[in-house]
Amino acid sequence: MAENQNNQTRQEQLQLLNSALDSGHLIPVRNLLEELHSADIAHLLESTPPRVRNVIWQLLDKEREGDVLQHLNDEIRQNFIENMQPQELANALADLDTDDVVDILGDLSHNVSNQVLRLLDEQNRALIEHALTYPEDTAGGLMNIDTIMIRPRVSVEVVLRYLRIRGSMPPNTDHLYVVNSRDVLIGSVPISAILTCDPDTSITQIVDEEMFTIPADMEDTEVAQIFERHDLVSAPVLDEEGRLLGRITIDDVVDVIREEADHSLMSMAGLDELEDTFGPIMVTARKRAIWLGINLLTVILAALVIGLFESTIGKVTLLAVLLPIVPSMGGIAGTQTLTLVIRGMSLGHISDGNQSYLLKKELAVSIINGIIWAVTISTLVYAFSYYKESGINHLHLAITIGGAMLFNLVTGVLSGASIPLILKKLNIDPAIAGGVVLTTVTDVAGFFALLGLATYFFG
Amino acid sequence: MAENQNNQTRQEQLQLLNSALDSGHLIPVRNLLEELHSADIAHLLESTPPRVRNVIWQLLDKEREGDVLQHLNDEIRQNFIENMQPQELANALADLDTDDVVDILGDLSHNVSNQVLRLLDEQNRALIEHALTYPEDTAGGLMNIDTIMIRPRVSVEVVLRYLRIRGSMPPNTDHLYVVNSRDVLIGSVPISAILTCDPDTSITQIVDEEMFTIPADMEDTEVAQIFERHDLVSAPVLDEEGRLLGRITIDDVVDVIREEADHSLMSMAGLDELEDTFGPIMVTARKRAIWLGINLLTVILAALVIGLFESTIGKVTLLAVLLPIVPSMGGIAGTQTLTLVIRGMSLGHISDGNQSYLLKKELAVSIINGIIWAVTISTLVYAFSYYKESGINHLHLAITIGGAMLFNLVTGVLSGASIPLILKKLNIDPAIAGGVVLTTVTDVAGFFALLGLATYFFG
Repeated sequence: MAENQNNQTRQEQLQLLNSALDSGHLIPVRNLLEELHSADIAHLLESTPPRVRNVIWQLLDKEREGDVLQHLNDEIRQNFIENMQPQELANALADLDTDDVVDILGDLSHNVSNQVLRLLDEQNRALIEHALTYPEDTAGGLMNIDTIMIRPRVSVEVVLRYLRIRGSMPPNTDHLYVVNSRDVLIGSVPISAILTCDPDTSITQIVDEEMFTIPADMEDTEVAQIFERHDLVSAPVLDEEGRLLGRITIDDVVDVIREEADHSLMSMAGLDELEDTFGPIMVTARKRAIWLGINLLTVILAALVIGLFESTIGKVTLLAVLLPIVPSMGGIAGTQTLTLVIRGMSLGHISDGNQSYLLKKELAVSIINGIIWAVTISTLVYAFSYYKESGINHLHLAITIGGAMLFNLVTGVLSGASIPLILKKLNIDPAIAGGVVLTTVTDVAGFFALLGLATYFFG
Repeated sequence: MAENQNNQTRQEQLQLLNSALDSGHLIPVRNLLEELHSADIAHLLESTPPRVRNVIWQLLDKEREGDVLQHLNDEIRQNFIENMQPQELANALADLDTDDVVDILGDLSHNVSNQVLRLLDEQNRALIEHALTYPEDTAGGLMNIDTIMIRPRVSVEVVLRYLRIRGSMPPNTDHLYVVNSRDVLIGSVPISAILTCDPDTSITQIVDEEMFTIPADMEDTEVAQIFERHDLVSAPVLDEEGRLLGRITIDDVVDVIREEADHSLMSMAGLDELEDTFGPIMVTARKRAIWLGINLLTVILAALVIGLFESTIGKVTLLAVLLPIVPSMGGIAGTQTLTLVIRGMSLGHISDGNQSYLLKKELAVSIINGIIWAVTISTLVYAFSYYKESGINHLHLAITIGGAMLFNLVTGVLSGASIPLILKKLNIDPAIAGGVVLTTVTDVAGFFALLGLATYFFG
């Protein structure tokens, strides 16, 4: 029950902590920290400015450092680890699961990670060195090696006795794995079956040979899709010969799902998914500057297109007023399609077999919307030009903006659908580059269409 | 092992299905469907155009309809359900877990859902009617009622005997719940403890009274945060008196995490998170049109601002060329901050205690970037104006665009940080409305700053 109260009063705790920190009374802060779970401390660190972060970290029990590190966002963790001695880090990591140690060491320089490895005890070191050979974003990099293996020709009774001698089970163990003498996986037995079966039952009678298995080199996002679709809590990881290497558990998969979803959202704004909300000003400013610089280049390109038609604008200054409308609408329509396609790709919905349907459907949608909004804007502009007595041919102006609108909505949507597919073929992340390429296309095409038509009529 | 092969050849199966469907040979399609898991069939349906979808649905065994429905995206499910008779739907739902039935019935009209309810057997009906009283987006709406309850004063041996008589356990059961005679939750016992303890151990010795508990009215996103942070597989749901109502399992929480993350991404492009990638053209076009219409209003507002300064542009047509630059940069800088804040809010990182730090930090970042890009664009424009012999005061033009750039980057970033906080206070979803409000602000402010300064110098 106590835990629940902890959750409900998080806001209060945060306020207590802040006021204690502000007043400089550190003993109540330390007491508050002792009451919190490591995961909550990690969340607290992620929610505080860098100055306060360091104070909290200093007040933390040395023994809890590893556990808190394991729950921290990579970027913030990196900052703390950089200030730790190899011995201190090795102590902090000593009690963690192999997969968590691998996750932390994988982010360090080869040099530092080797120093830390040398300080771990021998058995741990061998296991971790082996696990570090798998890329971080594969099933091998995600797996833990704490599987419970049993043989097929024993009874449930024997397994129960073995488990009682063992005295504990790794977290999130929902299956025991049945292997042969060469460690090749034969099947799995849900622990619920061990609990509900008659003790005389033989394992061969209850083994499930149809379970989901994960090859060690499978990409972590594909692993996440399998877990998500089939509601798995854990799954065995096999090498090419079908030997059991370890298992992946849902808690690590949830992190993959969260990171991947964050990646799409954050990348489309040119941000890193690990971006620290409360990060240091200079680091943040530098990262943002790069994205703004790229955008400046694309918008200068668009400005140069307008520059080509400066004399037309000199004749019809009303065109300057209408300038933002067409590129904006094309950009919005394109972004909708782009987002839909990027989401569809990350859910595994889009394949070679259905791309052409998708393109045709989006084309049809864009023509419908293109016509609706071309007619609307033409009517509005005709009325406005008439009302203002602008002295130019109202109908020609209406055709100019309506034509440009239809053209650019179709261009935007077709670009939004095809850019991510093309980028993916080129091995460029569509979530990062897609938006920039798209708005460049819709800006340039929009200005060209509007001012080109205007030049034809009025130039 | 067979399952793994299924995963690896999904692409092939999809191609086989497509060619079988194209050729009109439906028997191989039916055979292929029989080999697939229900979750995979749901994924297949989500990945195919509506015409093919209906063919696949017709070919599906009636008995599997419920299981496939349960895994389908809400929007696509709705389409199938609308064409089903109440009796057919009741049959399909008969074998599902209560929480899944509630999830499906919750989306139907009151009338249809009552018709279906009347056709379910009595016991199921009572349970489902009770569960339907909780809002869908709360812990109560997410929970299942298949808990295993035990009493404190029994031994592990007794629990084992009870479980063997029971014969099976609900999926994802990792804890048994210890309750008193009024069903008030005392604590939980991990089933790993039941397996590893001496059978003579009393439940009171191994009960964990500090487990996480969830009140029935907690929001589902908050539930997801607790599961994610503390790596839970299941958690008990309690009423206000502490009585055990049911439990929430990780598979349903993963769906909440996925939907919430999708919501942020899709909403920022004005899309519904359940948007069907391959949905019917007219439905899609109508939904998109609304968003484009809202955008048209905002960009017309921006155009009207330009209209106020038409005479200045008439004097200096180079201003028309420079028009897109300032609003674009302000919009990009603001979107970065907006995205960061929306992500931070959905992760629970942003609270009243740290908002002022966040605003100060973002202000500092925007001033740094404002100065960098103001100087850059001023220099470029000065050089361009000089090179073109534009005949206007180069320095004044450079000051105009540089000043507007600095002003609009700061405006954009401050708006990006404050708009979501304000919208949330007004109970408006920042992910949906944030982007529109932001770009309206940056467009209007950008044009005002640029053309206002220009009018001061050249007007």
